[in-house]
Amino acid sequence: MRFNKLTVEAIEHFKRIVKPENVLTDEETLKRYSHDETEDLSYLPDVVIKPENTAEVSAVLKFCNDNSIAITPRGAGTGLSGGALPVFGGVSLSMEKMNKIIKIDERNLQAHVEAGVITEALIEEAAKLNLLYPVDPSSKGSCFIGGNVAHGSGGPRVVKYGTLRDYILNLEVVLPNGEVIWTGANTLKYASGYNLTQLMIGSEGTLGVITKVVVKLVPKPQFNLVMLASFPSAENACEAVAAIFRAGIMPSALEFMERTGMEWVIKYDDIKFDVKDHINAYLLVEVDGNNLDLLRTDCEQIGEVLYCFGCEDILLGESAAEKDELWKIRRKMPLSVKANSVYKEEDTVVPRAELPKLLKGIKDIGNKYGFKSVCYGHAGDGNLHVNIIKDSMSEADWESKLPLGIKEIMELTVSLGGTLSGEHGIGLIQQPYMSIKFSDFHLQLMRNIKLVFDPKGILNPGKIFN
Amino acid sequence: MRFNKLTVEAIEHFKRIVKPENVLTDEETLKRYSHDETEDLSYLPDVVIKPENTAEVSAVLKFCNDNSIAITPRGAGTGLSGGALPVFGGVSLSMEKMNKIIKIDERNLQAHVEAGVITEALIEEAAKLNLLYPVDPSSKGSCFIGGNVAHGSGGPRVVKYGTLRDYILNLEVVLPNGEVIWTGANTLKYASGYNLTQLMIGSEGTLGVITKVVVKLVPKPQFNLVMLASFPSAENACEAVAAIFRAGIMPSALEFMERTGMEWVIKYDDIKFDVKDHINAYLLVEVDGNNLDLLRTDCEQIGEVLYCFGCEDILLGESAAEKDELWKIRRKMPLSVKANSVYKEEDTVVPRAELPKLLKGIKDIGNKYGFKSVCYGHAGDGNLHVNIIKDSMSEADWESKLPLGIKEIMELTVSLGGTLSGEHGIGLIQQPYMSIKFSDFHLQLMRNIKLVFDPKGILNPGKIFN
Repeated sequence: MRFNKLTVEAIEHFKRIVKPENVLTDEETLKRYSHDETEDLSYLPDVVIKPENTAEVSAVLKFCNDNSIAITPRGAGTGLSGGALPVFGGVSLSMEKMNKIIKIDERNLQAHVEAGVITEALIEEAAKLNLLYPVDPSSKGSCFIGGNVAHGSGGPRVVKYGTLRDYILNLEVVLPNGEVIWTGANTLKYASGYNLTQLMIGSEGTLGVITKVVVKLVPKPQFNLVMLASFPSAENACEAVAAIFRAGIMPSALEFMERTGMEWVIKYDDIKFDVKDHINAYLLVEVDGNNLDLLRTDCEQIGEVLYCFGCEDILLGESAAEKDELWKIRRKMPLSVKANSVYKEEDTVVPRAELPKLLKGIKDIGNKYGFKSVCYGHAGDGNLHVNIIKDSMSEADWESKLPLGIKEIMELTVSLGGTLSGEHGIGLIQQPYMSIKFSDFHLQLMRNIKLVFDPKGILNPGKIFN
Repeated sequence: MRFNKLTVEAIEHFKRIVKPENVLTDEETLKRYSHDETEDLSYLPDVVIKPENTAEVSAVLKFCNDNSIAITPRGAGTGLSGGALPVFGGVSLSMEKMNKIIKIDERNLQAHVEAGVITEALIEEAAKLNLLYPVDPSSKGSCFIGGNVAHGSGGPRVVKYGTLRDYILNLEVVLPNGEVIWTGANTLKYASGYNLTQLMIGSEGTLGVITKVVVKLVPKPQFNLVMLASFPSAENACEAVAAIFRAGIMPSALEFMERTGMEWVIKYDDIKFDVKDHINAYLLVEVDGNNLDLLRTDCEQIGEVLYCFGCEDILLGESAAEKDELWKIRRKMPLSVKANSVYKEEDTVVPRAELPKLLKGIKDIGNKYGFKSVCYGHAGDGNLHVNIIKDSMSEADWESKLPLGIKEIMELTVSLGGTLSGEHGIGLIQQPYMSIKFSDFHLQLMRNIKLVFDPKGILNPGKIFN
């Protein structure tokens, strides 16, 4: 065993570093922190620690490093790749008490927040000042900014506004030895040595613990419109996606949903929507801007493109209630799928025009191995969430055939110029597929970077690399 | 000496790796490759090698690594921080023959190019397809994409479109041991292990040699308008910058120029423009989009903001010729300053609302040490190019007092939340100031990352770190 077990003395020491009530070892708490939103995986930590400031994070990390104790940082536990699972036990370091919006700097269009701020809380505070923080993962109501940064999380608005990566200016990070650094500067541009901010984004808590985040904000567009388009052919719907951009239009969201996903959302969430017999896929398209007439023209143009690809019907959401109702369908889909069957979710991403090939390939692979899948996701970014459904598949087939099928899906994704994960991260569950994308040399480069930051390997051990 | 001298045998070996005519040792060539655009610095390489493909780059690097020969990658030599100077001699590896636009992928809005493609060549090819590659440094007519990536180069359109960083999807990179990797995937999103694409951006040729680049393109806006606003007070002009964004407008460029820069441009480039007596600064503002009426409204709104900050006069450029003329003033400014005096250029960047404080501080520091400066730059990004002018300053003062003054400018920049360089990089000449921004621990982290990629330190030695 490469890590030391936690002793009673260690627990006592932690209670001197943070408030005693922020060191928890009761069974119920350990169980609650043993899982995130990744399937039904569960690994018990030995202790849950909830620091309230950076100095406490630093002291906890230093102690773990000095004593070879495994420590796994944890955001809100909404991850879908098992990144927050304490697979070697030890400390689960929950950032939930570092939840202050330190300031919204209106003059510079920046916000300074602690890592445990809920994403939607920041979005709402910014909106009050007519500012937009456009990074809104489906779990925005509960996920933390720090977790978003650690996973390089996305969301529907990437397609127009860029990824989270484009909005993170500077990070306060605690290294395993307890050192605290600011990775960059609070500036829009940065050409001052290796960009550790960007290296930290998507490093899944394996290089350092993010404690504070400086984000860029943009002026909030005054208006938006939402369309829901129905397609008999799912592949045609995918084809239409690339065509919208080729028409010179930049939607603020462009989401794809398969029929089954729609049926389950209706069942699970009591949403009123008529799923017509021959419709197999939907596109949810949002446009935003400061001129409503122009947005209507955009919608007309988008409509023309969609109809060229066999779209049969378009619902337009203009009022806030209508738009919310359409968005609700998409936002609720992950939970609906989860509620209906044992499942496994992949987070494939390809260049956007390759989506039709990816979708067809996934269905072919499913037919070969005998599994069904429900696909939805950020089609505008080429990011397709593939929910493989157990349904009536036997336990034996689920255990033996599924890994082969997923491997083929990953091989297909990579062969189309894509990669294993667009926004969920590698975490625990995508590790078996790393060698499909990366050479041994490339993997070793990454492992050696890990060693630079965390020579003893105490920080989120067992993640990204196998 | 940590590097081996180049032997005749080594030169012969290089001539077997690349075409013999691509291995140059004549005095004139060595002299030409001994400098870039950084002041009057000059360091002779022992040989200039011009590979034509990735395999050649790989073989040259492997040989240098095996034989401890210093090798300095070189783009177009337009750098302003000395990044391409072969300070330890050895090989100058010029990427100029890897200059193919491999493809513009219209379906996916991507371009695949070799590292030696001139930035403007890509911009023009993309424009033919109504696509925009918005990363346009002042030197776009001669600089290479690979050099832009290596330096994290910027340009005026960052303010609306984001930095180069947001447009680089994937890189083919050759490591010192000759291994070739693609750092990422050709996708808009990426959450698959450490992001080596982003680490490579801005690493100034110290981690690997960039051989191919996949960039993101966006639909090209159909229209733009340009305004040139005159201000009696330079600080008021800077104050106006942040106010434009607060008014909810997102210009596609927002450039600041001091009066002296304007006078020199007029003199140097025979531009017809009346510099009025009491005007001390100018803002060049561009807006772009697909609706000309809306752009006119934007200009009116911007005008209202500018007049609130004491703007006296606004010239509007509507025709292509008028717009070109206004842009020419800004684009020609760096060369004009260079032509007029011995100078030293700094590339300060701060949160944009801190610009007035930065500008005032720079002038105060100049008064203290007895130097003049001409400031211009990407005010919308808080990125101010400070050109310190020798003018009538004595050689002794230039040598002794200037470093003290620059050190104070850098301290001021960092104290305002900024950093040493926004887009020029650290290279050779900003190294003395690294400790103002970074702790020893932070610097050591970067050095250790360097060791992961380049354990023998053959690649662009003497850069970034001292």
